Amino acid sequence: MKIVVLSGGTGTPKLLQGLKDLADLTVIVNTAEDIWISGNKICPDIDSVIYALAEIIDEERWWGIRGDSFRTHEQLKRLGFDEFMMIGDLDRATHIFRSELLRQGYTLTEATKKLKNAFGVKAEVLPMCEEDVATIIVTPQGEMHFQEFWVKRKGEPEVLDIYFKGIENAKATDDVVKALECCDGVIIGPSNPITSVMPILLVKGIKERLRRKKVVAVSPIVGNRPVSGPAGKFMRAKGYEVSPLGVVEVYADFLDVLVVDSSDADLVGKYKGIEVVATDTIMKGKEDAKRLSEFLLELFRL
Amino acid sequence: MKIVVLSGGTGTPKLLQGLKDLADLTVIVNTAEDIWISGNKICPDIDSVIYALAEIIDEERWWGIRGDSFRTHEQLKRLGFDEFMMIGDLDRATHIFRSELLRQGYTLTEATKKLKNAFGVKAEVLPMCEEDVATIIVTPQGEMHFQEFWVKRKGEPEVLDIYFKGIENAKATDDVVKALECCDGVIIGPSNPITSVMPILLVKGIKERLRRKKVVAVSPIVGNRPVSGPAGKFMRAKGYEVSPLGVVEVYADFLDVLVVDSSDADLVGKYKGIEVVATDTIMKGKEDAKRLSEFLLELFRL
Repeated sequence: MKIVVLSGGTGTPKLLQGLKDLADLTVIVNTAEDIWISGNKICPDIDSVIYALAEIIDEERWWGIRGDSFRTHEQLKRLGFDEFMMIGDLDRATHIFRSELLRQGYTLTEATKKLKNAFGVKAEVLPMCEEDVATIIVTPQGEMHFQEFWVKRKGEPEVLDIYFKGIENAKATDDVVKALECCDGVIIGPSNPITSVMPILLVKGIKERLRRKKVVAVSPIVGNRPVSGPAGKFMRAKGYEVSPLGVVEVYADFLDVLVVDSSDADLVGKYKGIEVVATDTIMKGKEDAKRLSEFLLELFRL
Repeated sequence: MKIVVLSGGTGTPKLLQGLKDLADLTVIVNTAEDIWISGNKICPDIDSVIYALAEIIDEERWWGIRGDSFRTHEQLKRLGFDEFMMIGDLDRATHIFRSELLRQGYTLTEATKKLKNAFGVKAEVLPMCEEDVATIIVTPQGEMHFQEFWVKRKGEPEVLDIYFKGIENAKATDDVVKALECCDGVIIGPSNPITSVMPILLVKGIKERLRRKKVVAVSPIVGNRPVSGPAGKFMRAKGYEVSPLGVVEVYADFLDVLVVDSSDADLVGKYKGIEVVATDTIMKGKEDAKRLSEFLLELFRL
């Protein structure tokens, strides 16, 4: 079965470790959190997706490479320079590899393909677009890049609004269009609906193609709290309820099925024409990811 | 005593470890071997000078930091990417530190000052100019950057000629001018006369100031062979004899004293109006460097 997954970081990469052996996968990845740091381009979500699929991701933090060292990063600190993202020595090689290809004139799509191949990843991994897009968080202390908000300021500032700088110029690449047109269904992983998924949905050419496909989303909200990360703060700032039904609202105009956690089983049924089903969605390891993946793929077989 | 040293890599940094505690030092460093690699600017000679003065240089290779690891470099190799200079993890932090300052708009002179201060170096370390200059080696296989010739091709191609791309635009910075005007004397360390020292001499405003000072050079050639590196090949390509007297020819129009090794004591005397003196110039450790430094400084006291 040909499945497209829309992915940010953390939640969806976890799920991908289950899906990767069960379906012919193409992952379309958010690039609105990308940033140039220390001379090279970091694509946090693409990296997490590749590392998860290669099964080398640090499964304590769900970013970076397991067992990585931080010699360069720590030396910079000793020299008095704050490299505000914690970049591992192995991880840095990924950023250099990608950026050297970009400097040679390859597109991000091409560079990502070479990168995932270098890591022995079979699934297709596609950036959502070629254009630069940046998630900007509006706070009482001013506007800041997502990474500054989340990494440098530890997600602490109050969030007044979120917008995606450059999104108006972003259009789906040929690879993204083809993947969406030729797949048997689309899964939106349990990633942050606002900062991880919304940028993908706003790329020209994507949402209209989702409407023509069966789309199943896994709620990243259980009860009235996100499983991880700042999703709650962002949903509230955008005027959505922090609940699985709030997630339905974000995806309302193309979603077919929302999968909620068993603890939210009271929501099962129809909501605004969208089917809500329940299963265990909390993934503590690869077995959980596999079980959830089988449940999701079954929904496309119905 | 205020001494200016003109420096490339290897030989002169060795000498600096002796000079640094005996004189008020300003080191003017060749930047014609600088190159952007993996997103950051590498200034091999500046780095060697700083590491030598900070006493952290790898004294086996005379480049890089003692005890450095190569995690990022080796990971790049595993990913199939050839980072053609062997960059250590600690060393890479130096390049990032410098390049982030350049990206913020600092000049190379300012960035170098911050860098040497971060390493606790007291001597002044100045790039020869702000303009980009590149040493190009002309070989039967085509023209190539010095680093490609020396590092990637291990110095093997035949050398037809050497030129310094961009040198016509290079002019001495205010700091370099001031150092040369206010010093009590200039030492040209035992660096490669063609690729390490000649670019410094060709920077507008430097040679005329050397003529007004007492200049002492240490021959990097002993007998008819360079102590280390490709100096012989380059001197020959430029039409100079590979001998201490060939070194005199390169520096002829401003040099006062050439210091040759004791094994070349037969050259002692006057040659084309330039005094030739002899002492042990081979430095096997800091004690040798100190002894040679004392010998050199004594020449300015005469």
